[in-house]
Amino acid sequence: MDVSLILTEMGQKARRAAYDLALASSDIKNKARRAMAAELRAHTNEIIEANRFDVTEAENDGLSKAMIQRLTLDEKQIEGMAKGIEEVAALPDPIGRTVSGHISPEGLEITQVRVPLGVIGVIYESRPNVTADTAALYLKSGNAVILRGGSEAVNSNRIIAKVLTEAALSVGLPDGCIQLLDLNGREFTTALMELEELDVIIPRGGLGLKAAVREHCKVPYIMTGDGVCHIYFAPSADPEMCVPIAVNAKCQKPSACNAVETLLFHEKCAPKLIPAVCTALEAHGVELRGDKKACELFDMMPATEEDWGTEYLDLVVSIKIVSSLNEALAHIAKYGTHHSESIITRDYAEAERFLDSVDAAAVYVNASTRFTDGGVFGLGAEVGISTQKLHARGPMGIEQLTSTKFRVRGSGQVRR
Amino acid sequence: MDVSLILTEMGQKARRAAYDLALASSDIKNKARRAMAAELRAHTNEIIEANRFDVTEAENDGLSKAMIQRLTLDEKQIEGMAKGIEEVAALPDPIGRTVSGHISPEGLEITQVRVPLGVIGVIYESRPNVTADTAALYLKSGNAVILRGGSEAVNSNRIIAKVLTEAALSVGLPDGCIQLLDLNGREFTTALMELEELDVIIPRGGLGLKAAVREHCKVPYIMTGDGVCHIYFAPSADPEMCVPIAVNAKCQKPSACNAVETLLFHEKCAPKLIPAVCTALEAHGVELRGDKKACELFDMMPATEEDWGTEYLDLVVSIKIVSSLNEALAHIAKYGTHHSESIITRDYAEAERFLDSVDAAAVYVNASTRFTDGGVFGLGAEVGISTQKLHARGPMGIEQLTSTKFRVRGSGQVRR
Repeated sequence: MDVSLILTEMGQKARRAAYDLALASSDIKNKARRAMAAELRAHTNEIIEANRFDVTEAENDGLSKAMIQRLTLDEKQIEGMAKGIEEVAALPDPIGRTVSGHISPEGLEITQVRVPLGVIGVIYESRPNVTADTAALYLKSGNAVILRGGSEAVNSNRIIAKVLTEAALSVGLPDGCIQLLDLNGREFTTALMELEELDVIIPRGGLGLKAAVREHCKVPYIMTGDGVCHIYFAPSADPEMCVPIAVNAKCQKPSACNAVETLLFHEKCAPKLIPAVCTALEAHGVELRGDKKACELFDMMPATEEDWGTEYLDLVVSIKIVSSLNEALAHIAKYGTHHSESIITRDYAEAERFLDSVDAAAVYVNASTRFTDGGVFGLGAEVGISTQKLHARGPMGIEQLTSTKFRVRGSGQVRR
Repeated sequence: MDVSLILTEMGQKARRAAYDLALASSDIKNKARRAMAAELRAHTNEIIEANRFDVTEAENDGLSKAMIQRLTLDEKQIEGMAKGIEEVAALPDPIGRTVSGHISPEGLEITQVRVPLGVIGVIYESRPNVTADTAALYLKSGNAVILRGGSEAVNSNRIIAKVLTEAALSVGLPDGCIQLLDLNGREFTTALMELEELDVIIPRGGLGLKAAVREHCKVPYIMTGDGVCHIYFAPSADPEMCVPIAVNAKCQKPSACNAVETLLFHEKCAPKLIPAVCTALEAHGVELRGDKKACELFDMMPATEEDWGTEYLDLVVSIKIVSSLNEALAHIAKYGTHHSESIITRDYAEAERFLDSVDAAAVYVNASTRFTDGGVFGLGAEVGISTQKLHARGPMGIEQLTSTKFRVRGSGQVRR
């Protein structure tokens, strides 16, 4: 099997589809999404049957209970996928919107308008509902997608992609607007990363996937969701806020990238705050790992150098005591991933300094880091949280899946 | 000499400078630019002396006359560099500007504000005045720069960078805000591309440089200035416009990336238009290369397959006859570089179809492609023309050298 030939054919098919998709009206795209939702519902039993096959395989392969839970689809989740697609249909279409415009001194009418990115490769892990979410969102912004899901979900992804594709074609969207790369084997994933027909690759997964993207990608990529997030408790922190914010940021959804991983306490407030915060976290089942000084104030495991750079994505937190705002800022600059950082303080100048100095997608004063999210930030449904500075930073909505072009209408102008 | 150690030290120095620069006020940055302009003027003789050394070397090495002309600096050009820097000082500072903002239902005040990209690596060829332009523009948007100029201009670049750096430091900007990588040897250029301390690399040069960036870069890059631009003359093209636009797009500045390289004529208007356009172009010294049908209408060299993908950057043009708008669109999609494309037509539907269908940074109706420019498009001084879709597309002004961050001001909010 010629891997690169297969990928090139997929890429060219996607590129032809992208050309037509860029010209598709909002009406047709919304009709496609309604058809996609209806067809998902109509094929619920078929999808569950295919999913059972994946789940049985996963059990035989000894995958963890958590992994199997993420993999398993039931009627409720398929209804959720359908509802999700309908909600995307209700969002405003970003394509064709005028971003800016003016008449040049020569009389040229120059407008900058939103256009799709083109062909997007999305590589994701495990959860098969991502297949439906991604297809709907990326199609909304006029892009053709090549989806690469996890090998353990291949049967579920295959039937979902088939149902969605047939629905899209039935209303007249071009063949190739949604394609699933469903051949298992790492060489296919690598070949997708090397595919020059793509306009951008968006990886949604762990550090291994990201390292592979950095190594193999020949087109631009957008890194999302690395979150070693911090909360710094300043000397003037309102004690009433500290426990609720720490507990919320760590425990409300520990697997989220905007959950906190490290708590920094100023040495002045540490003796009072650490016992209160740590007691509450322990009551929520959180494992604590502290530096030397923190261990003196509360009974916990000693943290190692590795802890400061680790995104636990679990009920584990590291705790460090610092002697100044500068030390906190330096720690965040060294170990943070530029995602979400928060300061708890009553000091105005300190709050402003933190907002100015921290180089991250979202910088907070007196709030949980858990708010970094497309919905909260006013961008609508979210396709990921970018931790890079180019193109999009922070939550990415459908507008962040677009580019622009300049349209210039003249009447014979030449440049002097 | 440990190449990667030298680069890492430069990178870390730039990163520290970027941290301070991000917090520098507009006042200080403008003061720095005024000092830079003044110091350039004050060191005119020194700069000319260093430049003479480069020019003599280049002559001994047998560089082309055109190359030597690009390399040579005189008093007028140094005054031009100083004036350019002063003009940049007069532009509004993009940093800190609020892009959007709202109050969330939970009462969080969320604002998205412009911040610098951080540390930018700029690799450019030959012309030493780029050193001054780049330093001024990148500093305006709060970025630290590592500059890598051509080896043939190293003495000129060294003195210019020294003068600019001293001026910047004299008003209190951080050491490391402008650094020149002035050690000759390709291994240094490669090491700069591999430097992980950079936030972005912007190459400004030919295809060889761009291929090297694609191969070596470990950080995001912005490709600029590939311009295989087309003009399509439709059957209804206004004959009065055709000659002036073709001559302007090809001859006004053939070395510019927005100059036209291929003229496409519909077969219906070709018999009348080709003799007129070709006669005018020949009178301006343009070498013509046509497909078979074009050669039948006017005496010119036959074009080869290679011609259609070539950016001549010179007084050469390729000419092809097509039988439909679709064929013109397909040719542009196949050979174009997504830069600037124009249609000459009196047909409304055809004009709209061209504007919609062509996938390029700038799409024109009835105008010369030469207008694609930061100034004309309302973006101010330009640092290049992006031909990619991510981050910035088309002319890049200082705003395109920035990113954003979200500032979130709360009063104890936690996520429900």
